[in-house]
Amino acid sequence: MRKIGIIGMGHVGATVAYTLFTHGIADELILIDNNENKVEAEYNDLHDTLARNNYFVNVRMQDWEALKDADLIITAFGDIAASVKTGDRFGEFNLNAKNAKEVGKKIKETGFNGVIINISNPCDAITQILQETTGLKKNRVFGTGTFLDTARMQRIVGEKLGQDPRNVEGFVLGEHGASQFTAWSTVRVNNKIALQLFDEEDQEKISEQSNKNSFKVANGKGYTSYAIATCAVKLVQAVFSDARLYCPVSTYNPEFKTYIGYPAIVGRDGIEEVIELKLTAEEHQKLEASADKIKEHLEQLK
Amino acid sequence: MRKIGIIGMGHVGATVAYTLFTHGIADELILIDNNENKVEAEYNDLHDTLARNNYFVNVRMQDWEALKDADLIITAFGDIAASVKTGDRFGEFNLNAKNAKEVGKKIKETGFNGVIINISNPCDAITQILQETTGLKKNRVFGTGTFLDTARMQRIVGEKLGQDPRNVEGFVLGEHGASQFTAWSTVRVNNKIALQLFDEEDQEKISEQSNKNSFKVANGKGYTSYAIATCAVKLVQAVFSDARLYCPVSTYNPEFKTYIGYPAIVGRDGIEEVIELKLTAEEHQKLEASADKIKEHLEQLK
Amino acid sequence: MRKIGIIGMGHVGATVAYTLFTHGIADELILIDNNENKVEAEYNDLHDTLARNNYFVNVRMQDWEALKDADLIITAFGDIAASVKTGDRFGEFNLNAKNAKEVGKKIKETGFNGVIINISNPCDAITQILQETTGLKKNRVFGTGTFLDTARMQRIVGEKLGQDPRNVEGFVLGEHGASQFTAWSTVRVNNKIALQLFDEEDQEKISEQSNKNSFKVANGKGYTSYAIATCAVKLVQAVFSDARLYCPVSTYNPEFKTYIGYPAIVGRDGIEEVIELKLTAEEHQKLEASADKIKEHLEQLK
Amino acid sequence: MRKIGIIGMGHVGATVAYTLFTHGIADELILIDNNENKVEAEYNDLHDTLARNNYFVNVRMQDWEALKDADLIITAFGDIAASVKTGDRFGEFNLNAKNAKEVGKKIKETGFNGVIINISNPCDAITQILQETTGLKKNRVFGTGTFLDTARMQRIVGEKLGQDPRNVEGFVLGEHGASQFTAWSTVRVNNKIALQLFDEEDQEKISEQSNKNSFKVANGKGYTSYAIATCAVKLVQAVFSDARLYCPVSTYNPEFKTYIGYPAIVGRDGIEEVIELKLTAEEHQKLEASADKIKEHLEQLK
Repeated sequence: MRKIGIIGMGHVGATVAYTLFTHGIADELILIDNNENKVEAEYNDLHDTLARNNYFVNVRMQDWEALKDADLIITAFGDIAASVKTGDRFGEFNLNAKNAKEVGKKIKETGFNGVIINISNPCDAITQILQETTGLKKNRVFGTGTFLDTARMQRIVGEKLGQDPRNVEGFVLGEHGASQFTAWSTVRVNNKIALQLFDEEDQEKISEQSNKNSFKVANGKGYTSYAIATCAVKLVQAVFSDARLYCPVSTYNPEFKTYIGYPAIVGRDGIEEVIELKLTAEEHQKLEASADKIKEHLEQLK
Repeated sequence: MRKIGIIGMGHVGATVAYTLFTHGIADELILIDNNENKVEAEYNDLHDTLARNNYFVNVRMQDWEALKDADLIITAFGDIAASVKTGDRFGEFNLNAKNAKEVGKKIKETGFNGVIINISNPCDAITQILQETTGLKKNRVFGTGTFLDTARMQRIVGEKLGQDPRNVEGFVLGEHGASQFTAWSTVRVNNKIALQLFDEEDQEKISEQSNKNSFKVANGKGYTSYAIATCAVKLVQAVFSDARLYCPVSTYNPEFKTYIGYPAIVGRDGIEEVIELKLTAEEHQKLEASADKIKEHLEQLK
Repeated sequence: MRKIGIIGMGHVGATVAYTLFTHGIADELILIDNNENKVEAEYNDLHDTLARNNYFVNVRMQDWEALKDADLIITAFGDIAASVKTGDRFGEFNLNAKNAKEVGKKIKETGFNGVIINISNPCDAITQILQETTGLKKNRVFGTGTFLDTARMQRIVGEKLGQDPRNVEGFVLGEHGASQFTAWSTVRVNNKIALQLFDEEDQEKISEQSNKNSFKVANGKGYTSYAIATCAVKLVQAVFSDARLYCPVSTYNPEFKTYIGYPAIVGRDGIEEVIELKLTAEEHQKLEASADKIKEHLEQLK
Repeated sequence: MRKIGIIGMGHVGATVAYTLFTHGIADELILIDNNENKVEAEYNDLHDTLARNNYFVNVRMQDWEALKDADLIITAFGDIAASVKTGDRFGEFNLNAKNAKEVGKKIKETGFNGVIINISNPCDAITQILQETTGLKKNRVFGTGTFLDTARMQRIVGEKLGQDPRNVEGFVLGEHGASQFTAWSTVRVNNKIALQLFDEEDQEKISEQSNKNSFKVANGKGYTSYAIATCAVKLVQAVFSDARLYCPVSTYNPEFKTYIGYPAIVGRDGIEEVIELKLTAEEHQKLEASADKIKEHLEQLK
């Protein structure tokens, strides 16, 4: 039986729930939010689909104790408005650092010993706080991080070449935020090195767009939901099936001593392995700078 | 190739798009909305999922001409706030009657000759306006109507008996709105007549809840989206596969001379057949009253 | 995590595995068969799909011990040729009674305490032997029984009326074999009583065809696989999600003191409840006769 | 509406039909085979699933004329026993060359103008004959070719590294048969060049296994079905959604003047583009030798 908790029933958490629901991925869902009305509304809206859904799903709400033997918890709390307003996901930092500590403490109290996938922003810093406060092993707590930004980069590259984004390999690395960057040395399309497909100016533009596209979406609809939800669900599936899937997520990086977007192998125990990349000197420098930014913010908190 | 247009990119239209997208149901989607920023944001959010989606989908936006050879158009325009505010879906009537005329005219101009599934509220009246303004045959235009309310009734009955809502047969009939009612003579659970399972008081309560639950959801999250989207998608699939599925939808009813929620067979040409029910005298009266309400509103419009 | 064992890698067991695999329903599959070459071939064929499958699945073979903490075991052993040759599923009885005792004993030795769904024929008698030899509670062992025959009846009725078979309600009851029958008092199409749609001659014909269609398929392709696999998978999903789905399966019937095809509620613990039907006197008699046939065969075994 | 014909109802054709059926990919399927009993059995087995399937599908049989406006035809005729017996897919060549000419002629007569995906072996040679006899443009006829062998290579490499095969990039090139080879210069795992992960001996072994694994499967179960079916279905989806997916298929190669396994972009019109690889001299030589083998066989036919 697959049992999943989702903490935070904003647009992202609710879309994750709906996706798990309509694809028959979860057997039991536990929905939690501070806003009683909101969580009840999502609970009811999901239940009203049951007669038309191809799958039955047991959904419960506000039941922290039920998380005890959940396999997975997805954290998606926060207030995107604060990020959109400041144009930086650290706009939500103070709020979400507080949230993360409370949520982490409550998760710990349940005795939960599964895997946490964090979506809450600023993703890397919040993932770290959740790991620390839950006391779970570092590999058992990771964030969606640049898995989403990488999808955005793949999409832009795919569009430029008139192709399926799934033809595009490679990574956006670093903070799931302003200091992220496309590691062009890793990008390949149709087995061709992307460095040879785009000049420096194009590279710069694509890298920027991959980051800024989220704010474009958020400005237009008030939030982002679909792309992040499908990223999270893909990771959920990798954990349940112990796929040992290779993908860039926010994972604890021993070199930089912080959570940061970097490729890893995702399986039953969360992060099974961090895969070291051979980056260029410049890329390594950018990654370091990105790590520093995350650490500084975490430092200020103390 | 399955080509589908969605007019109206509010929460409902966008959720329909996302559902079609992540289940690989559409090959080509055309998204249309008056709000350029909103439609662009949804377009981008969907495109950002492509690298993580199991299916590729071609998505276009604001392209009315592309509707010409679409198989299906889903209409989901409107302003739910107006309905929520008044506590009645006719709260959106003036706005959506105007929308429907404009949209219907534009659809007609494209030369579209497929099937329209209308979600916009008040569903029955708006479906009728869309049929009239597009000039499409009556069977080619129908609404989600009480397909959703019936799902809500099934859910409530299922919960009361601790069972899968799919075990529950029967129909909510009439207006997708306040004058709807559960036709208890049609309801069966596990091959048992529901009339014997619930006393009159319970029947009344369930019937009321099936209607009011939508407002409860809308009050909690500001709109409803998941249940209605899965209903619409189920109908989309019935049309594409020519399933000749039996379900209660908003269909033109020759007896009452209006669109109204009533069981029909849904297939390639939309409504393949309206299936006459043997209702009790009281149920027939309620249905007539409900039809009268819809017709009166449509009359006032003229 | 969803862990499922399949014992018997003939066409049916393999098709069940493939279906679970390509729909992402199982996280871990354990494939077991006496024929080492066959199970290894299926194992390899399934593994070769992994790079093209939307889901990762862990597949193991011949690992009885791994069944210990499986949630579900599907039994699909046997030799359909013996049934086809004799034109009666009891043609496999001696062989499969022996198989069932061996398999049941081995399952018991693993300490397995989940749910068994038996497909092996003659389904009702073999299910009973498996229940007895595993020592599992009666509700935890059930068979696909007339869930398949009912699907065949729904298909025939649907075709006769030019409609989706899902519009057809009602049950084939009794032995998953020659003494089964369509309980016409339970059959409804589009809320109409089927008794009024078909005359006695038609009823007789449809009832016969629902049974004989399997042999027609088996004669043409040497076995049946697709319909039975989808039936089994539907039951697997009902168990995992604790759907409490209402469907006719081979369940222990206290009145007749044997396993036999009859409607029940299927959930996490297998059979959650047996739902008593109000049959006509003639139907009840047929059911009794069918039960007698099953019991006689089981008796002869002793 | 998605309309697909399948010619050849052996294990492969039937499994493709079942996969399209249970995933709701096709709206209309036309099943064709010389063996009337076989095709009728598969037709009936599929129809018997309809009441349990999440999707309705219209299935017809032996209706060549219905292919006229099909979007896609999958050819899966042949006699695998002849290949297994000789240990080489050219064991089926004489038989299937004859089949291909007949089938091609019949397809031409229908006026079909969609895309053909050929599975019949020897895949490359048969694809060429089908293209020639149907008179369809070269890009509209292609074969599954080394798309399957590549999946097998990915699986073996994945297993060796304890990882999801989807982490493995790169190609098996050439004939879908004995002269195929893994182009190691194209293989990457987790962004690492595979040449650095495996020594020459390992490379040789993996390359051999990718080819021989099919015969291992065929020896164990009498045929292969699952992996090839999922490969074919993936290509079907790429065509319908115009995905412009990058994958190695049997495509006409202007350099070698024959159909051969090589990477291409697959979309609505079949092969949208052949993507030139930078192979090593040795790899290029192997590819040339493989092309020569295919051409020689085709030559002998004349």
